[in-house]
Amino acid sequence: MTADMSPMRPRVIVNCAMSPDGKIAGTERRQLRISSSEDMDRVRRLRSECQAILVGAGTILADDPHLTVKGLPKERQALRVVLDPRGKVPETSMVLDERASTLMVTNEDCTRQYAGTEVVRLGKGTIDLNALLHVLGGRGVSTLLVEGGGETIFSFFQAGLVDIFSVYIGEYIIGGREAPSPVDGDGFKAGEHVPMRLTSVDRLGEGVHLTYEVLRDA
Amino acid sequence: MTADMSPMRPRVIVNCAMSPDGKIAGTERRQLRISSSEDMDRVRRLRSECQAILVGAGTILADDPHLTVKGLPKERQALRVVLDPRGKVPETSMVLDERASTLMVTNEDCTRQYAGTEVVRLGKGTIDLNALLHVLGGRGVSTLLVEGGGETIFSFFQAGLVDIFSVYIGEYIIGGREAPSPVDGDGFKAGEHVPMRLTSVDRLGEGVHLTYEVLRDA
Repeated sequence: MTADMSPMRPRVIVNCAMSPDGKIAGTERRQLRISSSEDMDRVRRLRSECQAILVGAGTILADDPHLTVKGLPKERQALRVVLDPRGKVPETSMVLDERASTLMVTNEDCTRQYAGTEVVRLGKGTIDLNALLHVLGGRGVSTLLVEGGGETIFSFFQAGLVDIFSVYIGEYIIGGREAPSPVDGDGFKAGEHVPMRLTSVDRLGEGVHLTYEVLRDA
Repeated sequence: MTADMSPMRPRVIVNCAMSPDGKIAGTERRQLRISSSEDMDRVRRLRSECQAILVGAGTILADDPHLTVKGLPKERQALRVVLDPRGKVPETSMVLDERASTLMVTNEDCTRQYAGTEVVRLGKGTIDLNALLHVLGGRGVSTLLVEGGGETIFSFFQAGLVDIFSVYIGEYIIGGREAPSPVDGDGFKAGEHVPMRLTSVDRLGEGVHLTYEVLRDA
């Protein structure tokens, strides 16, 4: 894990909501409301402070989010960025609507086009996230919000590119050894875990919101 | 899910430690230190206030814990209870040592004996946890501490027998779609999630400790 410290690189904030037993959805992978309304207000503010919001194709296929902030005009909406390495996101996805600009990201072998939407192709097989951050930095993105899912968040941690980990913890148990968690992927082995520092603890409605800063060697 | 509200039933406290991404160990399932020393003090106090401490056979096989409180004489140690439905716990396990009394629990088909250790056989195939709580209540156990692993904790939630869920959240990311979590098993479907109420939030060293009360229909 090495961090790209180039001045162009946007700051990366991971934000998610999980159950007290560490699940972002049940085994069925259907979208659940875990956040309190106070936390939803927080996420709305956070989104409106970021210039780009990113999710993986799995989140689009499971939840079909629009990734916009209600009430903001199109020109003030964050750029929506979707990691779709093999071009599997349906043309009818809400993230491809007109409410905000969208950047679709595929790997270099994918030739899929998306009607009226910009595409960038980065990396062999898996998407080169360092290259993507350079592209976003070059477009004036100073803060990128990564919202999921667990595979996408793992790939950002694995690439050493996460600066802030922000997690809301709700109040019901979901359970399930196959239920998705905030950070999935292959996981880190002992000695490779990502050290962080807890910087804030806030009760928000029925749950609690934690913010961590990822620690890096000086 | 139905709760057994018989007056003999011990109160059940689940206690565990997880990473900020909801893992109790990595994919290798090797024991990790997630708790801060402040949290270890808290767990020591909690253990010394309970009359019985329970884990599943998987936890014995993975971590070989002794489940005792250092410095307490044998007669003041909690009864160690191990769910070992098919009799797989090795005779050399620390939980079978002389430091405290131990109750091994198998299913009704298992004939395994454990040298010098008491056995109770409850339930066909899976252990009947309601019956176990009656046995423990009958022996004067008023509070049972369930320490893991995720499969055992799920089975207590599934049986509607958990009163308190207590979780310490550490400060490094573990990741991994196959890493164990506090509540594994088959998981709960939408509509069957276990509702709880967050009753305390305490910073303990580098991490944070959350306590939830399980909500039941009046």
